Formats: sequence, C-alpha cells, structure tokens
Amino acid sequence: MDGRALVEQLKTIAAIPVTPFHPDGSVDWDAYDRVVRRIVGGGVTVVTPNGNTGEFYALSREECDRAVHVTAGAVGEGVLVMPGVGYDVATAVALGREAERAGAQAVMVHQPIHPYQSSDGWVAYHAAIAEALPELGIVPYLRDPNVTPAMLRRLTEYPNFVGVKYAVPNPLQFSSTVAAVGEERLAWVCGLAEGWAPFFWPGGAVGFTSGLVNLETALSFEMLHALQAGDYERAMGVWRRVKPFEDLRARRSAANNVPVVKEAMHQLGICGRTVRPPISEVPDAEKAEVTALLETLGIRQPAGASA
Amino acid sequence: MDGRALVEQLKTIAAIPVTPFHPDGSVDWDAYDRVVRRIVGGGVTVVTPNGNTGEFYALSREECDRAVHVTAGAVGEGVLVMPGVGYDVATAVALGREAERAGAQAVMVHQPIHPYQSSDGWVAYHAAIAEALPELGIVPYLRDPNVTPAMLRRLTEYPNFVGVKYAVPNPLQFSSTVAAVGEERLAWVCGLAEGWAPFFWPGGAVGFTSGLVNLETALSFEMLHALQAGDYERAMGVWRRVKPFEDLRARRSAANNVPVVKEAMHQLGICGRTVRPPISEVPDAEKAEVTALLETLGIRQPAGASA
Repeated sequence: MDGRALVEQLKTIAAIPVTPFHPDGSVDWDAYDRVVRRIVGGGVTVVTPNGNTGEFYALSREECDRAVHVTAGAVGEGVLVMPGVGYDVATAVALGREAERAGAQAVMVHQPIHPYQSSDGWVAYHAAIAEALPELGIVPYLRDPNVTPAMLRRLTEYPNFVGVKYAVPNPLQFSSTVAAVGEERLAWVCGLAEGWAPFFWPGGAVGFTSGLVNLETALSFEMLHALQAGDYERAMGVWRRVKPFEDLRARRSAANNVPVVKEAMHQLGICGRTVRPPISEVPDAEKAEVTALLETLGIRQPAGASA
Repeated sequence: MDGRALVEQLKTIAAIPVTPFHPDGSVDWDAYDRVVRRIVGGGVTVVTPNGNTGEFYALSREECDRAVHVTAGAVGEGVLVMPGVGYDVATAVALGREAERAGAQAVMVHQPIHPYQSSDGWVAYHAAIAEALPELGIVPYLRDPNVTPAMLRRLTEYPNFVGVKYAVPNPLQFSSTVAAVGEERLAWVCGLAEGWAPFFWPGGAVGFTSGLVNLETALSFEMLHALQAGDYERAMGVWRRVKPFEDLRARRSAANNVPVVKEAMHQLGICGRTVRPPISEVPDAEKAEVTALLETLGIRQPAGASA
C-alpha cells in the first residue's frame, strides 16, 4: 500500500458502473464486464463497483464480491479498482478482504447506515475498517453534514486513509473541511459527480465521481481537463450541456437517478434497463425524454468514443 | 400463517431487546438470553430481536440469525417472535427463512436503505419479501414520510401483511394513513415507543414498541393498559415520568438512544454497557444522569418486577 501513489491516482474521474440485470432481476455478468470495459476503454482509470449507481444496497454480499472480481478482470493494468464496502464493520471488512484478493487497491466506505451515530462511533467505525485492511486505501463516502474536520483529522493517523469522497452538497462546508484537514494529505474527491464538481473545485477538489461515464466518457473528461487547467468557462460549458440529464435523474427525489442511466444504456444497446426494488424503471412517459437528451448530448452509439 | 391471529397478537407492547456485547465487542449470548427472559418474565408477549435498539446495523448476518435462535429459545409458549430483517431483498428473505426455522411467526421489515427509492420500488420491495415468506407475518417498519396510503393499500393484497410499525413522528399523517388504509385490516403499531404512543392512540394505534422494557416492563404496561382503557390522564402520567429518560436518549441527535439503555442495564447489573460503532458509550459526564433517572423511575434491581 503506497498511500501517496493512491492519492495521486485518485486525482481523476471515479467511474461508478451500473450493475446490469437480466429482465428476471438476476445480475447480467457478461453485460457487467462489457460496461466496465467500455468505461475503461473511454480512458477512465478509477472504477468503483458496488457504488450507489451500482445499486449497492440491492445486491447481496455474494454479488458484491463477484462484481469486484468481474471488474478486476475487465480493467487492464494501471486502473485502480476501488469497490464500495459497507454495513456493519465485520461485513465491510469481509467485503474488503475479498476485494483485496480480487486485486482491488482501495475501498470506498459507504456511510454507516445505523440510524443513531455518535462522533466517536463514526470515527471508530472507519478506524476499525482501516486497521483491519492495512493493505487497502480507505476512502470514506461522506454524506453526513455532521461529520466534522476534527473527526476526519483523527482518521489521518491511519496511513491508508487516502481520500474522501465528499457528497454533502455544500461547497462552503467542503472548502472549510479541506482547509482544516489539509489539502495535500488526502485526495478530495467530489462525490456528487459532474453536477457539483465545478463548485467543489475552487475549495480543493481534485477529482469527481461519475455515473455519466456509463454512457459516454468524453464529456466528463472535457470537464475534468478544463477544471485541471483552471478553465471554469469551459467546465461550465460542459456543465450546462449535462444539466438537463442530471435534472431528469434528480426527479422524484432522485428515484430516477439510476433508472435514467440504465434506460439510456438500454436505448444505446449497452445493457438492459432492469433495476431492482426499491427503485423502479423510468416511467414510459419519460423514456422519450431520455431519447431526446441522448440526442442533445450527441450520444448515439455504444463506442465509448467522443460525442 | 393465521393473519387475523397475528393482528390480534400485535395489539400490545413489542419489545426490542438490546444485543449485549462483551467488552471486546463480541456478542454476549448468555446475557442476550437473560435479557430476553427478563423481558418476557415481565409480561411481554411480542419480542423483536434485530431491531434498532438491538443495533441491527452493527450485527453481521450470522449474528442476526443467531439472535433469533437465542430469542426463540428464551421465550416460552404464546410469545410472538418477530425479528427485524432488511438490506437487499435476497438478504431480507434469507434472514426471514432462518427466522422461520427458528420459530418466528412474523418479521419486521426494516425500511429499505437504498438512497434512491421510488413508490413502485418501495411496494415491489415489500411485495417480494411478502411473497417469498408466505408463512410469516410481514410488518413494515415505516420511517419514510413519503410512503402514502395508496402504497400501503397495494400491499394489502398479501394476506401475510399483518401490520405496520409506524415511526414517522406525525400523528396527523398517522391518523390519515390508518383511516385511508383501514383500521381493522392491520395492526397499527406506534413504532416510536412510549414517547409517542399516547399521541398515536387516538388515530388508531393498538400497540407500541419499547426499548424501555429492557429495564423494566411495569411502566410500559401501565401506559398500555391506560391507553386500552381510554384513560389518557393515567397514560400521560406515565409519559411524564418516562420523558426525562427518553430526552436523555434523544440527546446528540439520538446518538444516546441505545447507549443510555445499555448504561442503565449495566448499572442494574443486567448486561455490559459496550456498544458497537458507529455509536459509542454514554459519556462519563452523563452516567450520573442515568443513575439519577433510574432512581427517579424507581428502577433498582434486575427483577423485572414493578417499580
């Protein structure tokens, strides 16, 4: 585990692949393999199976394990596999160990789902996972606005704590947190995708997550390169193009988040549109909207190439 | 599966036992057995292992299974064992099947934890579980204010859908929901314990959950019997006595919820105070408050008898 190297590797786009299902709801592993190869073929170098876009909470533990193995088999040399792990500490560690066996070098730790949490308990949760998985980089998926810089600082004693996937939609809090914990020590990844990346960048973001890369990587890389060059005008040009698609995903309290991506992938012939409960397919009335948005974005064929 | 009988059985207090841990964090199964026997010895006839007070989200799947077996072994004839099940559908069903083997007659379905949910998906999630476990009563743990009566009505086609553990802190919404779905078809259980039971009762609640019964059952039964008799004055007398204890549990966004119960049980010599991340023990400064509250409530010794 080379913590500094992992921090550097995370300064890019982290793809969150969908988990394709057959119409009967079982995982379509061949399609999964294709999806990952397509994303990596489009230039992506960090892949997170078992993220929210992958319907982590609708997968069994065994399916999570297999998703990491398929991902690791589909990516080539030099690609960082950083699966999501979560649930109770023992299960998170077990998922991490299997991921390590599959070839993962880091894990993204889903936020603890316990309805009651304390500051000390939050730190203890992540510390226990970091300690049990010393050979893996640890990247907490931070969605709770009550997590303070002091709590994150306590985790910096673990050399394998290499980054934060920050997903609280508040750029001021993000910037203050980066400043308080240290910009250099960790990779600060915008965990709210292209929609928030330009607004997290001034505060110290060095990369962002993406579900959009399931469809097309060129737009996301255009945004990344623009941000890396400090060209906010160009980054916001991409942002404006992508915004209607993200708005459709956000509809009905984000119930559309994954279904819209899968509907688009279905229309592009990449994989099926099936999702698992507690989400459901895009309503018929909105399928035409997906078609129109793909047209507007210039995404037509499953080549993973430019728009 | 006799749905009508289960509806009747749920018209009481549903105890949510804590899961006692050794100081090293492993489950203390002997203490677990004692805790359940104590609760049942105090007159409780519905027991829910693997609830939130049992730190469900900090238990591994194997520990959840064992908790049901220990519970089933500790309760006598005529006690309804209704464990919490949850996570993805396949895992919820697997937990339910093992519970059935252990002797459970119903399951409380923890709310789906997927960050994105649709109305259809919510219904499909519970329908899939109800269909896969036809011999068990199904009681959704409802904490999401976006769940509508129409969604619940769609589930009533399943004969094993026998009740709702309602935990949205809004008595108006509760009452409207009961009226819209039907007061008689289901057992409407206040899922917010003694603190909310008197306010849910006018709208149709017929029972309530309780963590307090881990310490003492007499106060909870006094409230239940008062409510059943329509004696709100007496029920509110109990409510006022218990309120300071519930307030202490609610402190720091309810981070104290389980730790305060376990601290009290520790002081009473029932089991250890250890909790698992992401929660942590009651801060030293508040331990004396727990002692004082036990004194005020008249709870002194681990006899499970009256105050």
